[in-house]
Amino acid sequence: MTEHSLWRFSRALHRAINDRHFEDIETLIDEDVDWALYGPIDMFPFLGARQGKHAVLDVIRQIANNFHVRRFDRETVMLGIDSASSMLRYSLTALDSDKPISLRVAQFARFRAGRLINMRVLVDTFDLVEQALGRPIHLPKMTRLG
Amino acid sequence: MTEHSLWRFSRALHRAINDRHFEDIETLIDEDVDWALYGPIDMFPFLGARQGKHAVLDVIRQIANNFHVRRFDRETVMLGIDSASSMLRYSLTALDSDKPISLRVAQFARFRAGRLINMRVLVDTFDLVEQALGRPIHLPKMTRLG
Repeated sequence: MTEHSLWRFSRALHRAINDRHFEDIETLIDEDVDWALYGPIDMFPFLGARQGKHAVLDVIRQIANNFHVRRFDRETVMLGIDSASSMLRYSLTALDSDKPISLRVAQFARFRAGRLINMRVLVDTFDLVEQALGRPIHLPKMTRLG
Repeated sequence: MTEHSLWRFSRALHRAINDRHFEDIETLIDEDVDWALYGPIDMFPFLGARQGKHAVLDVIRQIANNFHVRRFDRETVMLGIDSASSMLRYSLTALDSDKPISLRVAQFARFRAGRLINMRVLVDTFDLVEQALGRPIHLPKMTRLG
């Protein structure tokens, strides 16, 4: 059995973010990749939708400029022939402040010939924003919860 | 081929939320279900972790008391033998204010003998909070994005 594309992609991604080694990840992204990290792009300009390998590599470089991955735990994973989904828990360090950030992430990927062609990532964004701000945002309690 | 447990569960869940018909969903949840909807529980007390069928049915009743599902689109879906993951886009109405809420959700489910035993749901929570508040939360731009 050959290794699933997810594992190779995941290793290359973390090597790019932590070691600024971008050669491996470059070969694992399709020229026509369709990519979206959902979240508040006003605060984190590297979030949002991107089309094409060049734009996606640029996002990965920006993430590498801002965060270090201390550890990640894959809580759930589903593997298809050319697809994968997982729920992960990341422990990051924000490089500008040296602050720890802990984050839950859901990720859906599709591959073609071993290269990433589609990526959708959802983050517990409110939790992320509060940690990045370094303070809680006051929220009213919603009513009608009988 | 028999129908995947996900489709039966999804129909029953939406019938519970929109029509307050809880009989079907009751039969599709395992007594020992392990359940978590990640998000700000201060604002939405029905979010968070729950153990057991009784606690989960209570959550579904609270969601039914607060929201109506206008439509949902399953953007991505992966089906395993007894598992399923999907990324969905929900259009809800908040019942207390009659306000529309549009929401992206990632959901990972596991079934045993057709009954739900594990559910993990991640929501684009910052987007949810802003819509529930009815106003944007001002965010500073993160630096070091070269």
